[in-house]
Amino acid sequence: MSPFSYEILHVSRRSQARVGRIHTAHGVIDTPGFVAVGTNGTLKGIDNAAVNDIGLQLMFCNTYHLMLQPGIEVVEKAGGLHRFTGRKGPIITDSGGFQVFSLAYGGVANELKSAGQRSSEKLVLKINEEGVLFRSYRDGSKMLLTPETSVNAQKALGADIIIPFDELLPYHTDAQTLQHSFERTHRWEQRSLETHRADPRGQAMYAVIHGGVDHNLRAQSCAILTHLPFEGFAIGGSMGKTRSEMVEMLQATMPHLSGDKPIHLLGIGDLSSLEQCIPMGIDTFDSSYPTRAARHGMILTEGENLKIEQRRYSSDLDPLEQNCLCSTCRHFSRAYLHHLFRAKELTALTLASIHNLHFMVKLMERYRRRILDDEL
Amino acid sequence: MSPFSYEILHVSRRSQARVGRIHTAHGVIDTPGFVAVGTNGTLKGIDNAAVNDIGLQLMFCNTYHLMLQPGIEVVEKAGGLHRFTGRKGPIITDSGGFQVFSLAYGGVANELKSAGQRSSEKLVLKINEEGVLFRSYRDGSKMLLTPETSVNAQKALGADIIIPFDELLPYHTDAQTLQHSFERTHRWEQRSLETHRADPRGQAMYAVIHGGVDHNLRAQSCAILTHLPFEGFAIGGSMGKTRSEMVEMLQATMPHLSGDKPIHLLGIGDLSSLEQCIPMGIDTFDSSYPTRAARHGMILTEGENLKIEQRRYSSDLDPLEQNCLCSTCRHFSRAYLHHLFRAKELTALTLASIHNLHFMVKLMERYRRRILDDEL
Repeated sequence: MSPFSYEILHVSRRSQARVGRIHTAHGVIDTPGFVAVGTNGTLKGIDNAAVNDIGLQLMFCNTYHLMLQPGIEVVEKAGGLHRFTGRKGPIITDSGGFQVFSLAYGGVANELKSAGQRSSEKLVLKINEEGVLFRSYRDGSKMLLTPETSVNAQKALGADIIIPFDELLPYHTDAQTLQHSFERTHRWEQRSLETHRADPRGQAMYAVIHGGVDHNLRAQSCAILTHLPFEGFAIGGSMGKTRSEMVEMLQATMPHLSGDKPIHLLGIGDLSSLEQCIPMGIDTFDSSYPTRAARHGMILTEGENLKIEQRRYSSDLDPLEQNCLCSTCRHFSRAYLHHLFRAKELTALTLASIHNLHFMVKLMERYRRRILDDEL
Repeated sequence: MSPFSYEILHVSRRSQARVGRIHTAHGVIDTPGFVAVGTNGTLKGIDNAAVNDIGLQLMFCNTYHLMLQPGIEVVEKAGGLHRFTGRKGPIITDSGGFQVFSLAYGGVANELKSAGQRSSEKLVLKINEEGVLFRSYRDGSKMLLTPETSVNAQKALGADIIIPFDELLPYHTDAQTLQHSFERTHRWEQRSLETHRADPRGQAMYAVIHGGVDHNLRAQSCAILTHLPFEGFAIGGSMGKTRSEMVEMLQATMPHLSGDKPIHLLGIGDLSSLEQCIPMGIDTFDSSYPTRAARHGMILTEGENLKIEQRRYSSDLDPLEQNCLCSTCRHFSRAYLHHLFRAKELTALTLASIHNLHFMVKLMERYRRRILDDEL
């Protein structure tokens, strides 16, 4: 029997928001839950032993980055990502598709700013039905990413949740290219699923819902993928230019997803998006937002966020946040953090990141409490 | 009664090496002991809560840096360095003299390479009998460092051990300038001591032995300073161009120091120097060597040091050092550290620094054991 299962404990009477539990071989993920991003097998500035202490129940690692460094075979030889990274809790990996198509089309932010011209194609050598041939930016070697190689890489990494190989559609795409890519992506997902099911290893595969901001395509994607035996769903592809465009897309998409499987929103986890998406029934969110904010001296609190480098905090002996029990707030003051940022000390980044991630864990606890109380 | 005292537990029968204990208001320092450098009130990449766990019994902070950022008054308002930085254990501060004269004469390394020309005098406005007037490199404001302002700053910082204001003599100095500075430095130390003793606050002041590589001047410095009621000695000033020049200087100096007070060697703590200096009876050593080495991927072990970025470690699943109980070795492998360095992750620096500092703590424990067993 698969160690993976999902149970819904409660659905709010006032929205689609739900409290649930994802069970994996490496432990439970309470939902709604925030997923920390550890691209290279570590969070930025926080070691995995500390991550366990903070209570982050799921870590997101990027297959593309791990393929290039240290290489899948190194992780496999170490006994998989959990043993290699020293992480005890659940891990999710992506397919590598997002990054390799970012090479082809430019990153999401750049692509949105551009008029749709492809930016940096020289690392991507060929895209066809089989998959994508690209060059490693590290050593120039050719690498082939297909549904089969991606899933096999994720088998070797051994994450608890894995993602089928898909194409990241740029926001600026003509209708014919969009349709062509949309169909191919779903064939790739089907091939990924077959590769996964031939050798499940206790892993769960989440389908990736595509269709960009075209609500009909999103509905079609749901229709195709909900009929396949995926263990959950991840909403991917282009989410639009603005948060409201994303929210409209999600409102159009969510009713087409079967409610008995966990639903992940890929790459989104800022505070406003959480507030808008949790009531729709989305269960997990990955984002580097809290650690990136921390590295820029932005401290998340229940009240207003603090820009800790501002002069007003130079003599403020309060903890970053009143009543916060994170190790940073238990040991250090705003004035000390202010000082460490001003002095450009590495420990500033670590201490601020610990607080912000702890804040996200507590925030999700509060969301779960509000759902259980039918207040959301 | 002063909370500061020093006791010698054992002197080796085979050398002047000795095992002792320095008692302070914030705890005991076992000697010979390694002193971690936390210039800005933090070690590089390791927060002070973790420093306590590693067992580093004394931290060295730099008054000059703290004067400029966050400013002495900020630390004082916070209740002193211990409370400001969250450090529970003993702290030593220097006088600021070393840094301000580095501005005048160039850093030690640069000065040694030069033919003795002064390099960057524009930040130092005036040096006279009173002290040094200089500009903050942070905001351009004028600051005056004198024996009185330095000691009063160190009173406000509240370290357990403080250092009198002295002049850092460049290695390349003509005899007349040397003699003039030498005499003035000792007048400055006397003024520092008077300021200290007017308001001891439970702090201990170590005299700084000067004289550069001139053995007669070193003996004179000892003669002057051992007759004053300092609580210990720090050997400072120019130590020469090579380790052997330093060792000869120390061999000439040590017999002139009274044996019943603790002796610190300023800014030296590499492995070879420890091996040569501990048998002479030096008790404490501060150095950024282990953390700087760590940031360059140099892992200290009882055997050969590892350059962890070398390809040979890419699949090595052993801990950094066999049987090491540091938190890095308990949780992570060489292959993972190799990967984190290659992926340029911040956590690499933290994890390597934790190991290297733990190594230094254990190394000093072994030295103490060898001395107790009369093997050194």
